[in-house]
Amino acid sequence: MQSTAGNFKVALIQMSVSSDPAANLDRASKKVEEAARAGAQVVCLPELYRSRYFCQTEDAAFFDLAEPVPGPSTECFRELAARLGVVVLVPLFERRAPGLYHNTVVVLDSDGRTAGMYRKMHIPDDPGYYEKYYFTPGDLGFCAFRTKVGTLGVLICWDQWYPEAARITALKGAQILFYPTAIGWLPGEKEGNGPAQREAWRTVQRGHAVANGIYVAAVNRVGHEDQRGAEGIEFWGSSFIADPQGVILAEAGGEEAVIYADVEPARMEDVRRTWPFLRDRRVDAYDGIVQRYLDEGPAERADEKH
Amino acid sequence: MQSTAGNFKVALIQMSVSSDPAANLDRASKKVEEAARAGAQVVCLPELYRSRYFCQTEDAAFFDLAEPVPGPSTECFRELAARLGVVVLVPLFERRAPGLYHNTVVVLDSDGRTAGMYRKMHIPDDPGYYEKYYFTPGDLGFCAFRTKVGTLGVLICWDQWYPEAARITALKGAQILFYPTAIGWLPGEKEGNGPAQREAWRTVQRGHAVANGIYVAAVNRVGHEDQRGAEGIEFWGSSFIADPQGVILAEAGGEEAVIYADVEPARMEDVRRTWPFLRDRRVDAYDGIVQRYLDEGPAERADEKH
Repeated sequence: MQSTAGNFKVALIQMSVSSDPAANLDRASKKVEEAARAGAQVVCLPELYRSRYFCQTEDAAFFDLAEPVPGPSTECFRELAARLGVVVLVPLFERRAPGLYHNTVVVLDSDGRTAGMYRKMHIPDDPGYYEKYYFTPGDLGFCAFRTKVGTLGVLICWDQWYPEAARITALKGAQILFYPTAIGWLPGEKEGNGPAQREAWRTVQRGHAVANGIYVAAVNRVGHEDQRGAEGIEFWGSSFIADPQGVILAEAGGEEAVIYADVEPARMEDVRRTWPFLRDRRVDAYDGIVQRYLDEGPAERADEKH
Repeated sequence: MQSTAGNFKVALIQMSVSSDPAANLDRASKKVEEAARAGAQVVCLPELYRSRYFCQTEDAAFFDLAEPVPGPSTECFRELAARLGVVVLVPLFERRAPGLYHNTVVVLDSDGRTAGMYRKMHIPDDPGYYEKYYFTPGDLGFCAFRTKVGTLGVLICWDQWYPEAARITALKGAQILFYPTAIGWLPGEKEGNGPAQREAWRTVQRGHAVANGIYVAAVNRVGHEDQRGAEGIEFWGSSFIADPQGVILAEAGGEEAVIYADVEPARMEDVRRTWPFLRDRRVDAYDGIVQRYLDEGPAERADEKH
């Protein structure tokens, strides 16, 4: 029988978001309370939980949505975390300085203190997701945060496609990777390639769980959000928690939901003993990872010998 | 409509293997001919196709199964490749020098010339898979081989769990990753955790396809193989080809089979334009990848500030 020492219950808040930041904060608070009452020890909100996904267009007025750290979100959830005794992951639009903004998650420990902060490292930019306009790429690197409950890795949305981010965070000792997210379909996209896109999104993250022998939790928003001048996005929800073998432990649909699962360190150790990937990494041969592309690699040189 | 320029058809030979190397070579040759007749332009055999999976026990006599390069396998398939005009990927037990052996794949171009050679970089060792006894870790790095048909990445079995190997091979320009494999269940393992293991194996490789916008082909053997002193392994087959979005294009069951799919460079480019992951890699922040573990990372230092 496996030890239950160090087990902890996580909750993901899959929610829709209105155009009223104060109302979103209030609703998110109530959902954190609900999750804590249900036994959750770590609660994670979706990316930019306090506002609509404003990145559908490029408009300087939306910078007004940003908040400092500390600020309204961290003050509210700091009090809540301490009162309920739960860790809360708060993804917010951070105003760091005039003209300098980040897509950030603050990790508040169960005594209300700040366990750490992560700034989104990989910033997307494609039609409907103009994030390079709003967010300065993160400068805090990839981190695992030691809380009173467990060691938590935090990454954000577009990061979820990058095995490097998952690997480095795992090597820092994380037991679970949280991915607060805002992903969905553009109009017309859902009909054709929609299911394949969502499945690819699940697969790559379950792959991180397998490759690293680690729990993975993706927390998406739901609902259709229109914006002036944009066609809107249907956020696909489908938040999930996978175990260190990539098995889905809990999963939401396309509606609001709070989902729960237990992180079990003994299970993680068991999976890593069965498949000891970390033991056999060829750290002597991974230099190419830090290059943009390897055009001048051995392949081309070997080819010239023909 | 997408261009079909540069398209090529690949075939994976999923086969059982007897205790007679000459018979295995002969059967493999016939299957390569069959695949070429069916239109394949690249044909890949399973890992160590010429012998039973001898790594179930540690026995110095099994080193007699190794062959030099050039040797019986490369001579046979070189002639076949040239005659049929197909690229052949030949996974073999390489005798490089007395006491120095590798788990190797030789890539023979469609004119019979050698396009390149890959030596398995990640070597497993766990009950029933005592590979560290037999195989010296590869010293040729991760490679993409330019053939007359396309640019082919080649990795072997245990490599398939490592995102680093897939990434570096993709950065070298590979259009498809081939994973010749010998993976199965130990007795008793199948009943409980078997389906989850096979699903994790599929998932992590489909994840490489998604993360890199690249085709992935896994080629496993089938059949139950007993060995003196060992309980045997049931090789699970399930060879598959996934597209750059991780969608399964062709898939085998647990019996012998030859499966086919087309590699379409235009599809690959389309997927990478939709999800331009390569553009946004944070190559300035991936240094940690070349470390064994990051015990002394920022997470711990941040924690001490409490």
